[in-house]
Formats: sequence, structure tokens, C-alpha cells
Amino acid sequence: MSKEQVIGALEQALGSENVISKKEDLVTFSFDATPDMPNPLPDVVVTPSTTEEVVKVVKIAHENKTPLYPRGSGTNLSGGTIPLEGGIVLSTLKMDKILESDPDNLVAVVQPGVIIQELNNEVAPHGLIYPPDPGTVATATMGGSVSECSGGLRGLKYGVTKHYVMGLEVVMADGQVARFGGKTVKNVTAYDLVKLFTGAEGTLGIITEITVRLIPAPEARTAMLATFDSLEDAGNAIRGIIASKVIPATLEIMDQVTIKTVENFSKIGLPTDKRAVLLIEVDGIPEVVENEAEKVVKVVTENKGELKKAKDDKEREGLWAARRAALPALAQLKPTTVLEDATVPRSKITEMLMFLEEIAEKYNLDIGTFGHAGDGNLHPTILTDVRNKEEMERVHKAVDEIFKKALELGGTLSGEHGIGMAKSKFLEWELGESGMDVLKKIKNALDPEGILNPGKMVSK
Amino acid sequence: MSKEQVIGALEQALGSENVISKKEDLVTFSFDATPDMPNPLPDVVVTPSTTEEVVKVVKIAHENKTPLYPRGSGTNLSGGTIPLEGGIVLSTLKMDKILESDPDNLVAVVQPGVIIQELNNEVAPHGLIYPPDPGTVATATMGGSVSECSGGLRGLKYGVTKHYVMGLEVVMADGQVARFGGKTVKNVTAYDLVKLFTGAEGTLGIITEITVRLIPAPEARTAMLATFDSLEDAGNAIRGIIASKVIPATLEIMDQVTIKTVENFSKIGLPTDKRAVLLIEVDGIPEVVENEAEKVVKVVTENKGELKKAKDDKEREGLWAARRAALPALAQLKPTTVLEDATVPRSKITEMLMFLEEIAEKYNLDIGTFGHAGDGNLHPTILTDVRNKEEMERVHKAVDEIFKKALELGGTLSGEHGIGMAKSKFLEWELGESGMDVLKKIKNALDPEGILNPGKMVSK
Repeated sequence: MSKEQVIGALEQALGSENVISKKEDLVTFSFDATPDMPNPLPDVVVTPSTTEEVVKVVKIAHENKTPLYPRGSGTNLSGGTIPLEGGIVLSTLKMDKILESDPDNLVAVVQPGVIIQELNNEVAPHGLIYPPDPGTVATATMGGSVSECSGGLRGLKYGVTKHYVMGLEVVMADGQVARFGGKTVKNVTAYDLVKLFTGAEGTLGIITEITVRLIPAPEARTAMLATFDSLEDAGNAIRGIIASKVIPATLEIMDQVTIKTVENFSKIGLPTDKRAVLLIEVDGIPEVVENEAEKVVKVVTENKGELKKAKDDKEREGLWAARRAALPALAQLKPTTVLEDATVPRSKITEMLMFLEEIAEKYNLDIGTFGHAGDGNLHPTILTDVRNKEEMERVHKAVDEIFKKALELGGTLSGEHGIGMAKSKFLEWELGESGMDVLKKIKNALDPEGILNPGKMVSK
Repeated sequence: MSKEQVIGALEQALGSENVISKKEDLVTFSFDATPDMPNPLPDVVVTPSTTEEVVKVVKIAHENKTPLYPRGSGTNLSGGTIPLEGGIVLSTLKMDKILESDPDNLVAVVQPGVIIQELNNEVAPHGLIYPPDPGTVATATMGGSVSECSGGLRGLKYGVTKHYVMGLEVVMADGQVARFGGKTVKNVTAYDLVKLFTGAEGTLGIITEITVRLIPAPEARTAMLATFDSLEDAGNAIRGIIASKVIPATLEIMDQVTIKTVENFSKIGLPTDKRAVLLIEVDGIPEVVENEAEKVVKVVTENKGELKKAKDDKEREGLWAARRAALPALAQLKPTTVLEDATVPRSKITEMLMFLEEIAEKYNLDIGTFGHAGDGNLHPTILTDVRNKEEMERVHKAVDEIFKKALELGGTLSGEHGIGMAKSKFLEWELGESGMDVLKKIKNALDPEGILNPGKMVSK
């Protein structure tokens, strides 16, 4: 079929109200939140509401070997949703129903277009939470965050998206509908295909239904700000907190560039003369919170840090506002923000932070680093301008070195942003030839025509 | 090559001290802990000590299309290690080194032949534990328990094996060595192949190194015994405990058949007139334990249960001795014990228990049921004799009905014992044709010759 015939077939299958093909309407779907990416237009965007409608779309794509890109809110940071080869964008935004909220079994069942925060709002009256909390929790969809396996601030204590996905319905590349997992905590029936499709970035199938695990909301929490004159002291404090058997809900770090920028941006009283701050929150029942906060105070003091405890919810909010301001504050300095998520074992955080300072100097770049120190997931953020070709070359060299160092330290290319287009060229550094071979074999087995999100993660 | 030539090649590759081929020595490797299975002899058993030696064995098997069965201690309960088609058994028992214990990052790295308890002994001085605790924790290997994705008593609060596996080294069917994951809590680089090989029962590759996550050991714990006159009350108490936001470390149930049998076997004072007992343990810091124990007492009392709290470690040990006696006590009654692990959503436990009583009556069978009520993972245990063909027919019919019911209730075929040979014929009931298709495509992609543990999980 020609492109026009494919669009006609989609209109017939879904109704023309669910098919977008005017050029001006397609522009929105040509990019996501990732900088420095190409922005090709798709031929057409479809907005199915049901699994049956998704099947119809997949079958048309399959028969015509048309590229098909599943897309939620497009907030991802690895070029995961860019329609690189034209074709069909499948938007899940009309698949926005919470199908079931089941407090007895601590689970919920949702369509992929449900916004993460909406799920939390739905289960809050039962005293439950869905813990994964990427920065985009108020805009990102469940389908997108499952496909990218989003992380967030609470990864250390609560884990990331994959730890909460219990069951999936998936439309395969040939239009077959398969269901894996379900509502049981324990399930060892067959290969763990729930986990295979979680984080597969839409390259192996289209997720049409998600069953997730919920947990009781913590009763109490205390937030603390610890400031340090040296990165080593901050690193030792991180190590000391874990060694004292406290697993904080959040354990965040900001380097001096970030501290200064945030303070300049929002005037909330951060100490701009300090080399690093840690933002720490412990949660649980009140007795646990008190007990763990005491241990944190002790460790911070022993490591020459100064600690300020939030006295009430307002002060707590202030501290987290500072952390949330990190990216927007950095982003205001220059037109382009290259946000990375190289991740290292927790014990290597200090070494990585010092290396990032060296790299900034070596390539004469502005790099602010903040991130999830507790789980080794750092966000070195390079402030630049894509129009400055010479500087962008230095940016690319710096990024190469950052990934090499992360791998050298026993880390990984991506802690929570995914591979997508942005990092697919680095993948072999981590997996080697044999690992790439396994990846390609799985991709080829499940999507032999290569129609599902082509150009992302791994190519045929 | 002939069988003799394959054995010769293995002897040349590993040294004859690592190759077992005398018939009397092979018998041990013809069965595992699963009843009612065939017991074919392998042609040869090899005992490599290193990944390099495993590669040599896999290459010989690959070149000669010889079936290859990885095996730890052979404690599995689904026929997962039976050398169904002859060929080579690869015993991991000489790969028994704890390669690294890294308290800073809360991880350990082990070879597959390490016994689970040995890992716990190694990390205990650091105040850490490796939580997965199958009943065979003192004999099962890490490689076996990762390949089967073992569960255990603490699944509800602490999860199962797959929640603790962070990295794997795997020898693929063609002898390539691949490494996936590592020491970082967050890792979204490529598909989650760590989880794909965890629970794959050795059908996709041979695991040669395992990186696992550790957690701080709980400081305190309290065990309680609650007794009930009706299954409904027990079921309501289970629901009530979770609804009160307590997630116990263990929440076990025994039905009346099991209570009577255990009491008769070990005379520990269980109330034989009761329809069900719950064994509940809460753990954490002392304040949490006290707080949660109070909530449990309240819920049990509200649901007409009688509760006894263990006053000290000795009483606690007594209660758990009763639970551990369940299987051996039941097993002494008849020559054959068919132990199932059909699993249902927690809220369906009562319905499932009542169904199991009906089934026992319908087929005139002795069925004792115990298991992990908190996570819906029940162990209906049929007491029989494989030599009684007529009764075994009734057993098979009963098992069929039990699995059908579990699936009807939104459950799964296996919560923790795996599919292996024992349940592969039921797999399509749960996955459907489309799910089986996905499974077969992955198996064929990674093991196109079908040499890895053939006849288990899914066939080519």
C-alpha cells in the first residue's frame, strides 16, 4: 500500500476521529524531551482506545511493513519515541482508564495512557502508593514509564518501575495478543516476559494493559539537608549512612555548580560556598523515622558535614523544591541541556563526581551534577547550545568519556533514562559482542520485520 | 562423534577427574526431588570449576548437538534437572566460590555452586542477609535457585529470588560468554536479560556467575500463632492484616489435615480441633515489631481467632519447627508426596482452600494444604503411592482441576517451584497460544539446536 492507502486503512479501522495526518498536527509527534535529536515527521498518528483497536493498527503496520512507534506523553530522555523512519505513531493517550483498583491484593490494573499521578490519586484513599516517581510523574504515562522502566528519587529504598510491574498485556508485532504475569506476588510460570517487555522501549511489542503492585503509604517522614566542604566527606557520609543500616527513601546529591545555580535561581538559602549537599529523607512509622534520622545525624556529623532537619512539612517542601529546581535552574543558563544518567556502584560516587569536575575542565564545559547518590545514579548536566557546532563536538567527546568511566567503575550506561536513539551507539561498550548478539536474536525473534520502534535500542 | 568420543573429548578438555561416566555414579544424577518422574541415566556428568571450563563443555555439546543439563544440588520440585534425553549433566558443585562480598554496595558475587546458606553465613558478620529462603536453603545452590527463581516463606515482604539478582554471567548455547547487569541498583541498559535468564530453568544458557543484592538484617522479630474455627475467619484475618498496612515477613497457613498430621508427628501442642492456623512473623526495628504485632493481635481477635505470641526465641523456634514439619509429617503418611504450588491472588485464598477440600472429597484423596498465605502461594500436598495406578489417575485428575481453578481465580500454575517437566503440559492453559508462541520464539532464538535442558519448560 502507498502511505495514503495506509492512512485510509487506518481511518477505516479506527474512524477518522482517531487518525491524525495534517502536517501541522504531526509536528508535536516529531520530538520528545531529548535534546540534540533529529525531528522527522511521522506519516500519521493514531489514537486507539482499546486493545482491539491497537491490534487493528499493528496488523496494518505488519502487512505493509510500516514502522510503528508507540508513544505516551513523549517525556522520555533518550529519543525513545522519535519517529525516525516516518510511519505510524501510536499514541496511547486515549487508553487512559484505570481498569481496577484492588486494595485487598495491593494491585491496580491500568491502560497504558493513564498518567502516573492519576494512579496515585486513585489509590491514595486506600492508604496506598505506587512508588516509582520519575520527575515527570504528573505528565508521564504508565505505558511510557513501563516501556522505559523509569526510576526516580525513591529507587534506593523502593526500587524502580520494574519492581512494581506484575502483569502485562502486549500486542505482538504480528498482531497476536499475549498476557503475562498477573496479580500474584509469586509467579515463576515460564520465562519472566513481564520483565522482558518492561524497559524494552516498545521495540518488542505494544503494551496495552498493565498490572502493578502497590504498597502502604509511609506514615511519617523527615527530610534533612547536609552540607559538606569536600566531595570525599560527602561520599563517606553516603557510605556511612548505608553502613549504619539506614536505607533512606531518598538520598540525593547536588554539586557546587548545581548549588550555586539553584540558589541564584530560587533564593532558598542554599550554602553556595559548599562543595556538595546531600538531601536525605527517611520514612516509615514515626518510631522508625526518628530512629533513622538520629543515625543520619550521627553519620553526617562524623564526616564533617552540617545538618539541618526540616522542622515541618513547609520546610520539607522547601528542601525538595530546591532539588526539583536543579534541572530547570541549570536549564535556564544555556539554550541546550544535555542531561545524562550514567550510573555507578554507590561506593564509586565520589570518584565519579571528581572525574566529572575534571571533564568539565578538560573540555571547557559547564557541567552541573545532581542525582540519586543512594543508588549511584548521577545526572551530569552539560549546559550548551546545539547551534554551536564546535562546542557540541566537545560535548560529544565529554559524554563518550563519561560513559567509558561509568563502565570502568562497574556502572552502566543508563540508570533510568533508557537507551533509545541517544545511547544505542554506546550499547556494545557495555554488552560486548556476545551481549549484543543475544539482544539482536531476541529482537529478530519477536519483531522479524523490524517494524516496532525501529532505530531504538538495537537494530535488526 | 559417538557417545564415547564425546566423553573422551570432555575428559581431554576438563581432565578425567572432572568427568563421571561409570553407570553406578550416574544414578544420582537421574532424578531430583520431584516425584512421579522418569529417571533416565545421563551418558556423562562433568564438574567444571570455571567459566572457561563451562565454555569448553558447551562447545562440545553444541558441536555434537548433545543435550546438556545444568544441575546444582538437584533439590528442585518440577523435574527441572532430569536428563530426559541422556547426554551431559553439567554439575556446578565445584563452582562453589563466593567471589566477592561488598557491604558498601550491599552486593555479593558468587559462583553458581555456592549453597544459599553459605552466602548468608558469609555476609552475616556485616549485619546483612540474602533474603530468598526456599525450604532447601541449607542444600540448594545459588545457580539452581536463580534458574528456578526460588521463593520461600518471606516472599510477601521481601520478594523472591528475581528481586535480588542484579547481574549474571551466562554461557550461551553456542559457547559465547555474555554478561548482563551488575552492581548498580538502577540499570535500564538494554532488555532486562538478567530477569530473562533468572527462572529460565537452564533452557536459555548456563549461569556461571551471579551478582545479588543484600539487605540489612532485621533487628528484631516476633512470631505468633493464630487459630481459627473456620476457613472464612482465617481468610478474613489474612485480608485484615494486609488492610491494616502490616506486611509481615511471613504469613503462613496450615489446614486441618496438616495441623493434625504435624501434631501427631511432633507433639508440639497444635490445636487439632481447629480448621486453620496462621503462623505470622513481623520483623524490623523493635518499635516496628511491637507496633505491627499489636495490629495483628487486633485483627486476629476481631476475626474470632485465638492468638499466641512466642515469648522468646525458644518458643519462636517451636512455632517454626511446626511449620517446617508440615511436609515431612505429611510425607510419612504415604510413600509418595505430590507437592503442588498453585498460586492465587491473596484475596482468593479462602475460596481456594475450600475448593481443595472439595477436590479431596471428590477424588477420595488425602490432601493436606499449607503454604504462604500472605502471597497466595499454597502447597496442596497429595499423599499417595505411585505404584497404585488407579489412585494416581485420580491424583492426576485432581491436579488438573487444581490448576484450572487457580487460573480461574486469576492465579498461576507455579508460584515458586517452576515448570520443568512436571507442568510443561499445563503451560498453554495459562499463556494461551500467543504466549506459547512468544516463549518458543525466544527459546529458538537463543538455543536453535535445542541442546539446553531439552524437554523442560518449552520445547522447540
